[in-house]
Amino acid sequence: MNFKDLIRKNRSYRRFDASASISEDVLIGLIKLARITPSSSNRQPLKYVLSCSREWNAKIFECLAWAGSLADWPGPKESERPTGYIVILSDTQISEPKDTDVGIVAQTILLGAVDAGLGGCMLGSVKRNELAQILGLPEHLHISLVVALGKPVEKVTLVDAEPGGPIKYYRDEAQNHYVPKRKLDELSTKVYS
Amino acid sequence: MNFKDLIRKNRSYRRFDASASISEDVLIGLIKLARITPSSSNRQPLKYVLSCSREWNAKIFECLAWAGSLADWPGPKESERPTGYIVILSDTQISEPKDTDVGIVAQTILLGAVDAGLGGCMLGSVKRNELAQILGLPEHLHISLVVALGKPVEKVTLVDAEPGGPIKYYRDEAQNHYVPKRKLDELSTKVYS
Repeated sequence: MNFKDLIRKNRSYRRFDASASISEDVLIGLIKLARITPSSSNRQPLKYVLSCSREWNAKIFECLAWAGSLADWPGPKESERPTGYIVILSDTQISEPKDTDVGIVAQTILLGAVDAGLGGCMLGSVKRNELAQILGLPEHLHISLVVALGKPVEKVTLVDAEPGGPIKYYRDEAQNHYVPKRKLDELSTKVYS
Repeated sequence: MNFKDLIRKNRSYRRFDASASISEDVLIGLIKLARITPSSSNRQPLKYVLSCSREWNAKIFECLAWAGSLADWPGPKESERPTGYIVILSDTQISEPKDTDVGIVAQTILLGAVDAGLGGCMLGSVKRNELAQILGLPEHLHISLVVALGKPVEKVTLVDAEPGGPIKYYRDEAQNHYVPKRKLDELSTKVYS
């Protein structure tokens, strides 16, 4: 797949085929990519917990909140839950959490997942204390973001957002998911050419 | 180029062929990709200033600090300066600056640049007040990051960093650039498979 198609195909997927398991090798492959991404002053403060075990996936799932803009949807039902997770940790013994680094690796992980025929979603709404306890994390490892992964079973469509108009994502009756994105004119404030 | 090679080829390049200009179309193409990346709660607070003009590139260059770890290198000489810039702005009227979003788009822009035969570097060390004044930015647009772009003319090589060992990038006498990256064992704290 060419890079532009990869970016287009990389949507925030929240419903998966729970029977399509992910291997440890696939998760480690994604960390290998994250490992060689740019890092602020090359400090590389990020570390990772990987899960593709049914038991641990279930424990992690309990600590997540899904789709803040879909008030009547509590998250994926059991048959549509993620089959893998990468928990992105910031090692505060190396530096203060650097969210720019977190975004760089999270996007890299998701693009790598799409490239491998999977998909996922970045989840920032996490019960951090609870998850840290479940994972037995030492205090200096701060949970920055959770990336949920799996084989997507939903259709996500981009639509143009009008300036000043609504930007919340929504679903139709068939549970198709729509995401309004601001138009190019609104994003590009000045062009010096 | 396949995605893994794209990630490998996407190094932080700081020396370019100043005679290889970048077109407005290329810069706009990169913003088109940034436009459809994930955004925290889909708020999309980021905006962009694009420059590929010799005059404006020079003004932006004066506001940047290069390669904090190379004490004796003040930045690229005139014949090796970037030929394009994308200044990433956070619109604080939409939300507080979200550095995760900044990392997501910055990585996407750089990967898109590499895909287009270019390369670049994320620069966080910016004279923000000075640059905001030069660009005539209103107060609600905060400068988050500057992405410098061009046709790279330097070789950047990754080397393994030993746990507890040095991680600062360095150059040899021929000005080849080396970047120590922490090894996989140090990054992956736990694997539940």
